Amino acid sequence: MYSFKCDYGEGAHPRILRALQRTNLEQTEGYLLDPYTQKASGLIKERIGRQEVDIHLLMGGTQTNLVALSAFLRPHQAVICADSGHIFVHETGAIEATGHKVFALPSPDGKLTPAQVKQAVELHTDEHMVKPKVVFLSNPTEVGTIYTKKELAAMRGVCDEYGLFLYIDGARLGCALTCRENDMTLRDFAAFPDAFYIGGTKNGAFMGEALVIANDRLKEDFRYLMKQKGALMAKGRFLGIQFCELFSDDLYFSLARHANDTAAVIRSALKENGYSLMTDSPTNQLFPIFPKEVLTRLEDKYLFTPWKELSDGRAAVRIVTSWATPMEQVQKFAQDLEKANKK
Amino acid sequence: MYSFKCDYGEGAHPRILRALQRTNLEQTEGYLLDPYTQKASGLIKERIGRQEVDIHLLMGGTQTNLVALSAFLRPHQAVICADSGHIFVHETGAIEATGHKVFALPSPDGKLTPAQVKQAVELHTDEHMVKPKVVFLSNPTEVGTIYTKKELAAMRGVCDEYGLFLYIDGARLGCALTCRENDMTLRDFAAFPDAFYIGGTKNGAFMGEALVIANDRLKEDFRYLMKQKGALMAKGRFLGIQFCELFSDDLYFSLARHANDTAAVIRSALKENGYSLMTDSPTNQLFPIFPKEVLTRLEDKYLFTPWKELSDGRAAVRIVTSWATPMEQVQKFAQDLEKANKK
Amino acid sequence: MYSFKCDYGEGAHPRILRALQRTNLEQTEGYLLDPYTQKASGLIKERIGRQEVDIHLLMGGTQTNLVALSAFLRPHQAVICADSGHIFVHETGAIEATGHKVFALPSPDGKLTPAQVKQAVELHTDEHMVKPKVVFLSNPTEVGTIYTKKELAAMRGVCDEYGLFLYIDGARLGCALTCRENDMTLRDFAAFPDAFYIGGTKNGAFMGEALVIANDRLKEDFRYLMKQKGALMAKGRFLGIQFCELFSDDLYFSLARHANDTAAVIRSALKENGYSLMTDSPTNQLFPIFPKEVLTRLEDKYLFTPWKELSDGRAAVRIVTSWATPMEQVQKFAQDLEKANKK
Amino acid sequence: MYSFKCDYGEGAHPRILRALQRTNLEQTEGYLLDPYTQKASGLIKERIGRQEVDIHLLMGGTQTNLVALSAFLRPHQAVICADSGHIFVHETGAIEATGHKVFALPSPDGKLTPAQVKQAVELHTDEHMVKPKVVFLSNPTEVGTIYTKKELAAMRGVCDEYGLFLYIDGARLGCALTCRENDMTLRDFAAFPDAFYIGGTKNGAFMGEALVIANDRLKEDFRYLMKQKGALMAKGRFLGIQFCELFSDDLYFSLARHANDTAAVIRSALKENGYSLMTDSPTNQLFPIFPKEVLTRLEDKYLFTPWKELSDGRAAVRIVTSWATPMEQVQKFAQDLEKANKK
Repeated sequence: MYSFKCDYGEGAHPRILRALQRTNLEQTEGYLLDPYTQKASGLIKERIGRQEVDIHLLMGGTQTNLVALSAFLRPHQAVICADSGHIFVHETGAIEATGHKVFALPSPDGKLTPAQVKQAVELHTDEHMVKPKVVFLSNPTEVGTIYTKKELAAMRGVCDEYGLFLYIDGARLGCALTCRENDMTLRDFAAFPDAFYIGGTKNGAFMGEALVIANDRLKEDFRYLMKQKGALMAKGRFLGIQFCELFSDDLYFSLARHANDTAAVIRSALKENGYSLMTDSPTNQLFPIFPKEVLTRLEDKYLFTPWKELSDGRAAVRIVTSWATPMEQVQKFAQDLEKANKK
Repeated sequence: MYSFKCDYGEGAHPRILRALQRTNLEQTEGYLLDPYTQKASGLIKERIGRQEVDIHLLMGGTQTNLVALSAFLRPHQAVICADSGHIFVHETGAIEATGHKVFALPSPDGKLTPAQVKQAVELHTDEHMVKPKVVFLSNPTEVGTIYTKKELAAMRGVCDEYGLFLYIDGARLGCALTCRENDMTLRDFAAFPDAFYIGGTKNGAFMGEALVIANDRLKEDFRYLMKQKGALMAKGRFLGIQFCELFSDDLYFSLARHANDTAAVIRSALKENGYSLMTDSPTNQLFPIFPKEVLTRLEDKYLFTPWKELSDGRAAVRIVTSWATPMEQVQKFAQDLEKANKK
Repeated sequence: MYSFKCDYGEGAHPRILRALQRTNLEQTEGYLLDPYTQKASGLIKERIGRQEVDIHLLMGGTQTNLVALSAFLRPHQAVICADSGHIFVHETGAIEATGHKVFALPSPDGKLTPAQVKQAVELHTDEHMVKPKVVFLSNPTEVGTIYTKKELAAMRGVCDEYGLFLYIDGARLGCALTCRENDMTLRDFAAFPDAFYIGGTKNGAFMGEALVIANDRLKEDFRYLMKQKGALMAKGRFLGIQFCELFSDDLYFSLARHANDTAAVIRSALKENGYSLMTDSPTNQLFPIFPKEVLTRLEDKYLFTPWKELSDGRAAVRIVTSWATPMEQVQKFAQDLEKANKK
Repeated sequence: MYSFKCDYGEGAHPRILRALQRTNLEQTEGYLLDPYTQKASGLIKERIGRQEVDIHLLMGGTQTNLVALSAFLRPHQAVICADSGHIFVHETGAIEATGHKVFALPSPDGKLTPAQVKQAVELHTDEHMVKPKVVFLSNPTEVGTIYTKKELAAMRGVCDEYGLFLYIDGARLGCALTCRENDMTLRDFAAFPDAFYIGGTKNGAFMGEALVIANDRLKEDFRYLMKQKGALMAKGRFLGIQFCELFSDDLYFSLARHANDTAAVIRSALKENGYSLMTDSPTNQLFPIFPKEVLTRLEDKYLFTPWKELSDGRAAVRIVTSWATPMEQVQKFAQDLEKANKK
């Protein structure tokens, strides 16, 4: 049985394990004041090409989103996101629990447009309504799609026009920036948002997200907010060491590229065998639609995440590859798919 | 330079690293639904001697406290603790940030008495005041002291009398339960609180706290609260594997015993050289008072946490040992102390 | 210039003013423990026909909603409402500010159906999502429509099936229960919700809403929550005296009936002159659609609340009548409408 | 039976009732956008001598405190107050419910000193602790004492030095500014705090507090916060009309002066009969200490608020006078006191 359910099913990349072992008995300061965390921060700044940003390492995506957004907003201010947005659907009301409304806009492809944002802001006219202040995007989105450089520039424009902050959830940012359709480097990308995070958990780390705060107005006292929300790791070096490994060379991106490459093999196989997909995802998450009998055959050997039951009896599932997915495994899946199709 | 600043300055016990390596490429379910987390839970239940408790693995102490207390309380209910209590002093208002008042009582030795709790409850007479509902203890306390079995039984009594929940922060629970003055097993201890946590971060794990919920009324939907507060780890097995190692035999307790033993060497040396201590701590945190010149000499070779400037010019520092402190190191410190004393 | 903008544009019914004067220099207990508040509570219980409910007098609708809902919910629980729901649109995120997600469902007529509620609950499958726990209705809705007895019975059914609380915002409850299409008495109505409020502000009081809590599980310590949210009025008798007046005879209902009757005159005039309405409201809020030139003419003499610009150039406005709207005024409006139409 | 329990036991000053009657059927805008509220704001600004402040009318003291403080603070920031502070003791954790810690300092006379504030700020050294940001005072304090001009100037100084906001709860501000020991006009007083409120509820209004925001940094979007907390009154004119009456001439101050004058009669009688007081209050709250048998005799005719049982068997009570206390009543009390004393 092989699982395509998620990209957090294995441990960490072997280089990370080796680095943990190598440094294990060194004594360092706690709470992310150690030299590894500092070094990781420097490596990321270098890669982004901006020394003046603040970098904070946190333990997970929901945690990063809730610490950041609640730090950035006054009590009456709200977040705008797509209706598939992770903060709207899959974080158990974490943002609302910090006091802020999340205002969701319909989006079949998981992306927001500047026109939608503009309309949402203009809808909120007075003090009887919340005041939208942050635009929340994910890149890639929850359904695997990505933003182009032009799209992000346009979103930045509308944010500037309306005095909004732009925040981007990069839980799978590596996959966005290394897929074939992408037209940005991390440096290009980092020019747009006021803050974003570079996901480690889903790209080879045991855990860890590197939050980048670019806008000076959002930097003050951020470590207080981390501590208050239980997000300031005592043995913070554990995060620092992992990001040092990921960013000391191209590891972060090569792991993501591998996830995309293995997904590409599956995508080709799906298309060759005539299956359509729910979304046009160029990254490591695919949402194929199968007839029930095909799905049943595949489920003898593979685990998927159920996604949606269609009215015609077919079912969509989510297939996810990762840095840890062996190329042989996806090639085997391609063969099994062909067989399942023929029966 | 050797640091006695804290018990989270090194990585993890080598057995934990080996276990992580051994399991690294296995595929498991996310979000603490993996077999390792389940096994860890079983091992802890067995050690406690009660199958009906709920066990949840979280990532840090502040996180565990805030998720648990906010889950257990209605909005107008408050927590009672000692004025040195971690939640009152050192968690950046984490509990208040979830909406609840923390009512602190004076306590030179870090411990609360049933009489204090009783008085605090009776002080809150009507709906113009908060309603105390949880008694928060730490064992050992912030200043290293411990509760006896009889003291906990008495506290349980007052809690029952006033309809209060008893919650115990066990960030260093191992040290409490393995020190010479202790008169309880984990099983004995677990009979008193409605909920408590067994700290991993400060006792050999990279991170991780095992929350034990004994009272049925506090169990419902707890995973929702964890997720909402960013505390449901995606690669939860990382916590599970560590607690499996710590509790598959006596490792958890032997690590704590070692921390106490190394502290005992320092404590003896302090007493032999005539230094007094701020508190009578039988565990791995010591608070000696040094004349400035002695302190200066020691600080050539050792790092301490500054604790308090006394009015007579002397200074108290905190010295902490841990599972990772070499016995030779504390013996060397004992010699250096003697030398520093003589100069 | 006459304003049809809202039903809170004047002071209070003269009988209320007289009662305030009559009682002005009596000394009474504060914080709603006075005999008037007690009497008002008794009068309402009698009218509802149930002695065992709890009655609390609060100062406004948003306040009542936020105190009640935050009292009823655990942190991860959410409220379901129509997308026109006052808590979703017009309370500046008051419910989210207490930590709870408001999940809105599309509803052109302002009403929720049991099928929608069922679907919303079933959509929330696990701990990565909030847990819907309260169904929030308004009667009449934000667009003037009302629920029938059968509809509320069905909603009660689905709430029981899924373990949900049913809460009804009755800011204009008088108008719902006295309009021609209504098929319930207050007593009938009160059998369905777990809690609801009887609005005073929009029906003849200076301010005041009477919250009725029927479900025993929601009663505990409610006054604590009121105080904590700044909703326990010091001179609470000011609310008590007003509700005594409104409920010592039929005043509450006759004021609402008058609001409906004056609206009915306008509704007839609108229909006779061929104007359509956005919603089929039988109560005191009407949403007519006017050609711009007609609207401009009417606005020489009348104030309306702008509602919606239609794509064909016409505009919808909100017209509201109240207990204080003179019958002659609406007759005059009917004439002016006819003139405006003819030009 | 006459009650000295509080200063909110009667209705409103007759002039207020007349003004409500006079304006009752006028149509005005809702939500404090009416001409009366605007006029009241102008009258207060004039009295303060500063046009650039913002004035907001709210419904009660706890509400005003919680809306203001939660508007002024970021999540990790805290409030410093005396341990008798209303927000610390008597608002059911209202400030904590908005997420902020209230840090209380010991104060037998209800007042804070700059030295205490300085020490409290310096105690909070890093991100593991909250960051004190607002100093909360009451004038008069909870025990009736008042601040001098020099004391407030010194407090302003320490606030400037440490970047703190100074907020003053003026629930009984009239009594502070009209008592014999006072050395400030409202204009003098208003020069010190960043924000403060002028209490109406306890000085002749049915309810209402006028919040004055002097610091520009605290003004933005304040009406949003009011609405979000249920504090934006629909028939806001009800507050406006009352403050118009109170500030159209000297009424506000003459009512407070009367409260002080009637208290002074009682104070003299207490002293003449040899009773000591808990605090040296020059305002309308007195805290005399009585032997039990004297208290029992007085309680045949008078109601007091129990304050404290002393260890010697005597008891302190709170006696409060108000704008509505007849001078004859306090003279009669003086006689009754003499009689009770003699028996």
